[in-house]
Amino acid sequence: MSDTTSAAYGDLLDRVGRLSNVSHASELLSWDQQVMMPDEGTPARSRQLSALSAVRHDLLTDDELGRLLDDLEAAGLDDERRAVVREVRREQERAVRVPTALVERISAASSEALTAWREAKAEDDFGTFAPHLSELLDLKRRYAEHVDPDRDPYEVLFEEYEPCLPLDHAEDVLTSLREAVVPLVEDIRAADADLATDTFTGTFAADRQDGLMRDTLDALGYPWERGRLDVAPHPFSTGTTYDARITTRYDEDDPIGALLSTVHEFGHATYTLGLPDDAYGTPLGEARDLSIHESQSRLWENHVGRSRAFWERFLPRVVEAFPGVGDPSVREAYEAVNAVDPSNLVRVEADELTYHLHIVLRFEIERDLLRGDLDVAEVPAVWNDKMESYLGVRPETDAEGCLQDIHWSHGSFGYFPTYSLGSVIAAQLFDAAAADLEGLDDLIRAGEFDPLHDWLTDRIHRHGKRFETNELVRRTTGEDVSADAFVDYATAKYGELYGLQG
Amino acid sequence: MSDTTSAAYGDLLDRVGRLSNVSHASELLSWDQQVMMPDEGTPARSRQLSALSAVRHDLLTDDELGRLLDDLEAAGLDDERRAVVREVRREQERAVRVPTALVERISAASSEALTAWREAKAEDDFGTFAPHLSELLDLKRRYAEHVDPDRDPYEVLFEEYEPCLPLDHAEDVLTSLREAVVPLVEDIRAADADLATDTFTGTFAADRQDGLMRDTLDALGYPWERGRLDVAPHPFSTGTTYDARITTRYDEDDPIGALLSTVHEFGHATYTLGLPDDAYGTPLGEARDLSIHESQSRLWENHVGRSRAFWERFLPRVVEAFPGVGDPSVREAYEAVNAVDPSNLVRVEADELTYHLHIVLRFEIERDLLRGDLDVAEVPAVWNDKMESYLGVRPETDAEGCLQDIHWSHGSFGYFPTYSLGSVIAAQLFDAAAADLEGLDDLIRAGEFDPLHDWLTDRIHRHGKRFETNELVRRTTGEDVSADAFVDYATAKYGELYGLQG
Repeated sequence: MSDTTSAAYGDLLDRVGRLSNVSHASELLSWDQQVMMPDEGTPARSRQLSALSAVRHDLLTDDELGRLLDDLEAAGLDDERRAVVREVRREQERAVRVPTALVERISAASSEALTAWREAKAEDDFGTFAPHLSELLDLKRRYAEHVDPDRDPYEVLFEEYEPCLPLDHAEDVLTSLREAVVPLVEDIRAADADLATDTFTGTFAADRQDGLMRDTLDALGYPWERGRLDVAPHPFSTGTTYDARITTRYDEDDPIGALLSTVHEFGHATYTLGLPDDAYGTPLGEARDLSIHESQSRLWENHVGRSRAFWERFLPRVVEAFPGVGDPSVREAYEAVNAVDPSNLVRVEADELTYHLHIVLRFEIERDLLRGDLDVAEVPAVWNDKMESYLGVRPETDAEGCLQDIHWSHGSFGYFPTYSLGSVIAAQLFDAAAADLEGLDDLIRAGEFDPLHDWLTDRIHRHGKRFETNELVRRTTGEDVSADAFVDYATAKYGELYGLQG
Repeated sequence: MSDTTSAAYGDLLDRVGRLSNVSHASELLSWDQQVMMPDEGTPARSRQLSALSAVRHDLLTDDELGRLLDDLEAAGLDDERRAVVREVRREQERAVRVPTALVERISAASSEALTAWREAKAEDDFGTFAPHLSELLDLKRRYAEHVDPDRDPYEVLFEEYEPCLPLDHAEDVLTSLREAVVPLVEDIRAADADLATDTFTGTFAADRQDGLMRDTLDALGYPWERGRLDVAPHPFSTGTTYDARITTRYDEDDPIGALLSTVHEFGHATYTLGLPDDAYGTPLGEARDLSIHESQSRLWENHVGRSRAFWERFLPRVVEAFPGVGDPSVREAYEAVNAVDPSNLVRVEADELTYHLHIVLRFEIERDLLRGDLDVAEVPAVWNDKMESYLGVRPETDAEGCLQDIHWSHGSFGYFPTYSLGSVIAAQLFDAAAADLEGLDDLIRAGEFDPLHDWLTDRIHRHGKRFETNELVRRTTGEDVSADAFVDYATAKYGELYGLQG
């Protein structure tokens, strides 16, 4: 590397470091807003966040950054440095291409849409939300056009959340999921099996749930010297490799909800914690976008937290924390945490299997809306038709139908698919881990999580954004991103649970 | 105002708003670091704070900001806008004049000095800290020279903390304090009175102290919807008018320490909360520097929290929280919280009266160091001589002497005087409030704090940085900043407590 190139690369890292640190500062402000901030703090916090966002935009659109990227792209860097330049360029390009005024309009329109959505949901009146949804679709179409006028706008928007997996690849995965899950759910419904869904009923005090969560996180190996657990209305995880925080929520009727949600967020946190300290502030120290992030949370939630082996280990702890549940068997616990309920209309409460159909439905609707193949006014009917077709159940209200999620009121079109992508990647990774780590089930049963944790850090976490999504999965599993592993896993698991024909 | 001027002023407010919001973001990051952050979060947090500091510096030194200020200074603005321009110019001028490289060197030298100071204090070895202190003095002298090569460097540095009160004015106040307090302390020592210093002895559980603090803050009128109370190793208060947080610390031997410290921080928070919402993000929505800020905390801590009337109201609450203290009289409580102990070597544990002598001593030493009238090597001896001369007691170790405070290891020279200035201004304000509000003592005794609170908001808080320090005090009290009110107050109070000749 020439001295000039080396100096340019150093300058790039300085600028990227500042950008990254400003982003992490914003994330901390958001964490505080959701976890600590007093009720009336919002006006100041909103302005602080918007100032940091403006600072970020100015740093990204600085002409000198563009020149550095031009020079470095032409300089013949090694693979690792080229990956850094690629990742910075992707962000810089969007920031430069989309006018600030449009970003601000979208932000203002989302604010208004959010208020309208809350009202519409509370009053079950889609008409209140519809004009805001139309406006946001229009603005986001224009946003996509600025980024690239020659491409499908939905494809462009999808890349906000999953920039490194082509949309047609993602769409193949979602189609495979639909084609496999719809008949599997039909078989389950037809089986009319009687699973032990009432294993954990009663009232479960929040402070005892909190103790159980801390014990569970201890047992999973969560490093408290680099994290914390707090309560938030919508659980999330955030932070850096030095400080990766988890939030959860306690429902006094349902300790298992909090437990699996905490294990899910633990999965996100392990990814953040597994990023290399010495690449902090560069793309090599940052997580590979939403699908891979979600693969880590789903792997821990579903493949660990919903496994029989996990319940052999953890059921005694749950019983100790809540003696009122009596003396359930591991089988009863396993059934309770895995029962499939197609009649559940609400995505965030859906089981591991039907969840995908909720996602496929949203994906198809938002894609068609963006492409102009569907009118906003038709959304409620199409939503309900698809619910009936995929899940055999029809919402009676839009509040429990197309108004249930906050995402569209944020203008987030293209986000939903990353949930299912994460889940199928989780299945692929878990299979690969099971092939590499002898007796993975026994390890889980013995409460020995380090080998799995280390394997994931070695294969996924430590690379940061070094590889693009499919390459990362292929390097680790030998396969492209695909629904196959999930479908095999689900077919076997639910076949056994529901006594289906193999 | 011409359209051009109006546009320039609008542009100024946009820039100042961004600056202010970036500063508030930094403050939140610092709050989190001291209150919430896990142990190993420091490397990331330091870089986030330093990125925000660099962003702030770039915003302040932007040529366009300088041009706007030039134009607006020439434009004949009204008083309020002129005050805004004056305040922004002050900050901008320092940022432009001091080279970034020097700021970074000071920051790096402080980091090293802090480590050396900790070691020096732990091992009672001034020699470990001395070279770092010399280096910081040298760097800060150079800093002052960049700001203004024609002025006394200590004067320039003092303005970092109290920019709007001339140093000779401050020095007059400190000299008056010394001349009045030294003989008063001598009289107290000579009186050999036996105050009820053992009124609150025993073990006081932290969680019960916490309950007492929350009750006390409720009773004082702290608005929880705009604040919170947490624990921090060194109590402080921070935030905005929308979100003004307090921290405290519990010592299981001493519930009164936490109580008065909490009332002190409540005073700071009332100032922040009293700043006008609609001026958030401009100098008119920001507090008038450290002396006035400290006047608010000292007024609540000393003139309210150490008053007989306060203890008539609050003693029953303390007894209820801690029945183990028995049934002390109000007089015994009043004596316990006001006893003077000249033999206490440690500033942060000092009583209301001798505290000033700790400050005068530090002020004289740091002023002489900066001016080159004192060598670093002489500091321990000079410190001890002054302790003996002012307080009649000589530290046996430097750990309890010149190594006790963290300030110099931060390179903070000129900070200490603002503590005493705040205290004398508090006495002036309390006299003025007592003259305006009939029966102020009775109001306190009745737990009616709103009138005092409203008076302070009206006279001080709502003006933000509109007036300079002395003008603000003169408008409110009819007097310049002076030690007289404090000296009269202390002479009467301690005369009564110690039975001194009137």
